[in-house]
Order: sequence, then structure tokens, then C-alpha cells
Amino acid sequence: MVDLDVVADNYRAFAGALPDTRVFYAVKANPAAEILKLLATLGSCFDAASVTEIEAVLAAGATPDRISFGSTIKKERDIGRAFELGVRHFAIDSEAEVDKIARVAPGSHVFCRLLVDNSGADWPLSRKFGCDEEMAVDLIERAKRLGLVPHGVSFHVGSQQGNPKMWDAALGVSARVFRACAERGIGLAMVNLGGGFPAKYMKKVPSVRQYGDTIFRALRKHFGNALPETVIEPGRGLVGDAGVIEAEVVLISKKSKSKGELTWVYLDIGKFGGLAETADEAIRYPIRTSRDGDAKMPCALAGPTCDSLDVLYEKEPYWLPISLEIGDKVLIEGTGAYTTTYSSVGFNGFSPLKQYVI
Amino acid sequence: MVDLDVVADNYRAFAGALPDTRVFYAVKANPAAEILKLLATLGSCFDAASVTEIEAVLAAGATPDRISFGSTIKKERDIGRAFELGVRHFAIDSEAEVDKIARVAPGSHVFCRLLVDNSGADWPLSRKFGCDEEMAVDLIERAKRLGLVPHGVSFHVGSQQGNPKMWDAALGVSARVFRACAERGIGLAMVNLGGGFPAKYMKKVPSVRQYGDTIFRALRKHFGNALPETVIEPGRGLVGDAGVIEAEVVLISKKSKSKGELTWVYLDIGKFGGLAETADEAIRYPIRTSRDGDAKMPCALAGPTCDSLDVLYEKEPYWLPISLEIGDKVLIEGTGAYTTTYSSVGFNGFSPLKQYVI
Repeated sequence: MVDLDVVADNYRAFAGALPDTRVFYAVKANPAAEILKLLATLGSCFDAASVTEIEAVLAAGATPDRISFGSTIKKERDIGRAFELGVRHFAIDSEAEVDKIARVAPGSHVFCRLLVDNSGADWPLSRKFGCDEEMAVDLIERAKRLGLVPHGVSFHVGSQQGNPKMWDAALGVSARVFRACAERGIGLAMVNLGGGFPAKYMKKVPSVRQYGDTIFRALRKHFGNALPETVIEPGRGLVGDAGVIEAEVVLISKKSKSKGELTWVYLDIGKFGGLAETADEAIRYPIRTSRDGDAKMPCALAGPTCDSLDVLYEKEPYWLPISLEIGDKVLIEGTGAYTTTYSSVGFNGFSPLKQYVI
Repeated sequence: MVDLDVVADNYRAFAGALPDTRVFYAVKANPAAEILKLLATLGSCFDAASVTEIEAVLAAGATPDRISFGSTIKKERDIGRAFELGVRHFAIDSEAEVDKIARVAPGSHVFCRLLVDNSGADWPLSRKFGCDEEMAVDLIERAKRLGLVPHGVSFHVGSQQGNPKMWDAALGVSARVFRACAERGIGLAMVNLGGGFPAKYMKKVPSVRQYGDTIFRALRKHFGNALPETVIEPGRGLVGDAGVIEAEVVLISKKSKSKGELTWVYLDIGKFGGLAETADEAIRYPIRTSRDGDAKMPCALAGPTCDSLDVLYEKEPYWLPISLEIGDKVLIEGTGAYTTTYSSVGFNGFSPLKQYVI
């Protein structure tokens, strides 16, 4: 279940966190039509990862100038289709991608994704996306030579980034790319600060305002008075805490009679039903039961499938009420982002997660 | 694409691998109706993980006496529904599960899942399933007391188990449980040897016949002349090498100009499109290109989504032809099991994997 009022509050907090920033909602976090419509009405822009997402945003009433095709891994025919639909902003991080865009989306704005440090994130993004700064300058020059409009740079400090200072180093790299491009006669205008703004799970996280303040100071430090336009791409931060999943306790059991053995609690949702982000126990969702006042015991928590990977928390046990019973309903909070679309089509014959919007 | 001829050949190999064994196909590996129909015709039995899978097997023409509800994590109403559909074989590994079955599936046969060593498996099953042998004997007694028919034990040595000798230790535990139950006046009849029989991926694996011979020797060693009925539950072993996925190269790029940098190759399928078993680079699929005769380079191989987790192979790079080009089609082999149903409903707006059966 997703609460649109929470999404609206979150949107306003992000929109006001930095002066002159534009919010591009990361559609992949939760592409529900109701969420897209609400955000379109509130004036949000959108970061799309595929043509399907672009079409969903247009169907929600946003104009194509408010959409950025932010994936750096796009089929040429998908770029062409986005261009036909009116999209004029594309991400790049490789020569081949620049060439594709120049061929099928001539004259479009491009921004180059930089590879930056992700330490401190609960869901770091590895080296899959972005390129180093030297290559970024080359790509921007290449884009200009091929008739594209180099608009700026983007980076992503890692999803669920708990440390606002991580933006400082990334902005330092961005400012160097701006200067190197200026020396080659190319004026960049925009820094896309990415996402990474955390949702509230178990750990305490800084507020959007604190993020805004820290990032603004870093912008001043690296860009002085020539502040660039900024764009932020919250996904999890916008919708994560707006969602809650109701689950049922299917089984509570022990593996042996020996002392110190963990109690195993099995829910009717797990890694294949939408909670994929518990991989490596990375994201730790708060779970509410009707017995939360009672004494608690350490549990291994698992999903219902016959797959061993479908264990949510075991290395760091999850404390649940001793009085918990089979058949109890529990509420898994903070599940508004990266859940419904992660759900498998039907592993073990279980249906995908259903979503209700209020 | 799944080739039914390969499935049929695999079925015959398994059916003949051990004397007097029955094959229960693990439906979760690939629940395609055509596969279920073929196996029903060939005389196979079926291991189901949910009511949906039971219904699919019945729709394929198998009678309910050929179905075992092999999940140890079942909602009581699902057990009741299976019983209504005629299913009389259920797995147990906890008191609560025995009690549920006694309440809503009275008089049914039950078999107890044992917790055994999984070392040597590419996809080990952790402690999620099964109980230790002392508890198993207690559960079997409890089942008998509650009017159920204790039929035997089951275990699983881990999926894609490369070492046939792992069945030896598990059969030793099984024989001890048989003896302990006999001392309490309960005669067990069946040992379910589980799955784990490997499909051919990159590594060379022993043949089904070698598995059969090794397991038969272990049965003799632990059970002497009082050989139990046996059941095997191949899933991956039956359908894994019958499937191939066609994918397209979306992007080939470098992250920087420095030497020794891996080339990144991005396909239009990844962890969220059906290749979830590449988690931790566990399962390594053979990939065929039209340029396989050419010189090769080490690559990081990734899927198309904006998720950093969607990297197939990076720690141990994958060697692909230097001449590979964007737009090339590649064939990912050995993908008949644990792919289609693992596919996400639409993460990043990408459609789930489509399957064709020949």
C-alpha cells in the first residue's frame, strides 16, 4: 500500500531542499500510475530508464521536456523511439552511446555520468555506471562535435547514502570537468546530483534539509559564485517511506532442540515477491506486529519459496515478539520503493506483489 | 527457448539411473505447460511448491497421487486446498507443519526433511529447510500420533551439486532416522534423495549414470538389503540444458582510457530479466556468439537496468570475442531452469522473459 500524501510531502521537501533545483523522480523506484500523476501535477520532472517508463510518464500527463532518459545503457532503437516521443535529454558514459544518440536523436542535450566514490551507501552502485573524468571530457567534446548539446554531468553516490558529505567529493570532480570543458570552449550548465537520498528504514538518517544544506555548501566550495543549475533524482527518498507491505506469518519453527538455536519465521513474501533489496541483508525494513509490546527473541526471517536464497535476515537476526503466532499479519514498513517491480512473475507459483494506492 | 526432446532424454536418463526409483520433477524449475504435459505423458511424478503449481500439474493431465507438496513452508489453507485436490503427500520439518497437515489433510503421507551438509554445491541451500535427526524422529512420532502416515525422509544436498559423494553422508543420516523410528515401532518406507543433480554449465559435471551408481552404492552401504523406495526430485537436471536464451548486446564500453581496464558488455537481459542465479556469480552460463573463433578479451558482463546489482560477471571476468559488436545476438545456454519464473514483472519497465517451446 502506498500513501500519496507522504509522496506529496516528500516531493515538497525535495523541491525546497536546494535553491533553483529541479526534481527528476526516478520512475523505476515505483512506476505506479497514481504516483506519476500526482508528481506530474506537483510539477515534478522524471528520470526514465526505458521507453516503457517514458510512455508511462507521458500517460500521466507530463510533457516530454520534463523527461530525461537517464539510463546509460540504451538500445539505439529505444533512443530513437524516445526522440520521436519528444524526449531531448539523454545520459551518456561511453563513445558508443554518444554515437547512437547523435545518429537517432540529433541535437539533443546530453549529460555525462561520472564514476564516483560510493562508500557509505547501503546499496552501492559499483562500477557499472559512469566513466572517469578524463574520458568524460573527451565524450563531451565528441558529443559537441557530433552536433549534440553538452548540458552537464551527473553522478550517483550510491542508493540509501547515509553520509551527505559524499556529494562533496563528487562535486569536486564535477567542477573539474566543467573547467576542463570550458578550456576547450564548451560551457556546461547543469549538475545532476543523482539520487541516493535515503528513505527511513531502521537506521536514523539525516533529513532532506540537512542533505540540502551540506550539498549547497559543497556547490559553493567547488563552483564559487558560478553555481550550475542542479537536478536531483530521488526515487527511494520520495516514495520509500510512503509504502507498507502486509504479510502473513506462514510458519514459526526450530531446526533442532539444542539451546541457542535461532527461531525461524517464514513470511508469505520474500526476495522473489518484492523484497529483493534484502540481498546481503543490505536494506533492513522495520516490521510491525500487533504484539510489539511483548518480549522479543532473535529470529531468522525467510520468504515462502523453496529457494535457499529467499532468506531475508539470518546473519544479523531480526528480533520479533516471542508471542508471534502463525497466521499473524505483520506490516513491513518503508517498502514503497523497489518492491513491486522487483517482484518475480511467479516463482514457485506465487503471484506478484499487488499494490494499492491511497 | 526450451527443447522438449532434451527434456525427454533427460527424463529417461533419470528414470533409469537407479533401480525402482520414481522421478518427481521439481516444477519450480520451469512450470511451462508443455514441459508438464510431456513429463506427465512420460510417467513422471511432480514435486510442487504451491497450490498454483499443483493446479498446473493437474491441468497437464497428471493424477493427484503423482504429486507431492514438497514445500515445508505451507499456509494451512493451502494444505487444505491441496488435500481437496487429492494430494496426499506432504513434506514436514517442524511441529507446526505436522499439526497443520493433521488438521486439514488427515491421514496423509508425510516425509520429514532433514538438514544435511551442502558443501560442494554451486547453489547451497543454507539452513532454511529441514531439521536435525533427533527432531526428525520426534516429528515422525508426532505425525503418527496425530493420525498421519509417516512415509519416510527427504534431504537436499544443494542445487548444482558437483560431488555425487555428498549423498553418502545424507543417506547415513537417513538410515539412522529409519532405525530410530523402527525402535519406536514406526516403519519408514521411502527416502527422497532430493534434487541437486547438476545441469551442464561451464564446469564439467559427472553424468546421471555416475550419480546413480554412487548413490546406489551409498544406499547399499547404509541400508544393506533392506533398500527403501527412493524418489528423486530433479529440476535443473531435467530442464536446465534444454533451454537457451537469446539476448542482444546493448552496449560495449570502457570506464577509462587506462590500461588493464575491463571492457564492459551490457546485454538486454540481466538479473531482473531471469538470470537471478548469477547472484554472487554462482551459476556461470556458457554464452555463444557468432564470433567465437576470434580472439577474446576479459569483460565485465551486465544487464540493462539502472541497478548496480544487475551485473552478471565482474569479479571473475567473462572472456568474449574482441570483435563483438553492439547489436549482436548472443545465446545464453543452459537457461532452461530457474529463469522464466525468476523474471521480474517489469523492473525498469523491461518486460518479463518470454519462453518458446519446441
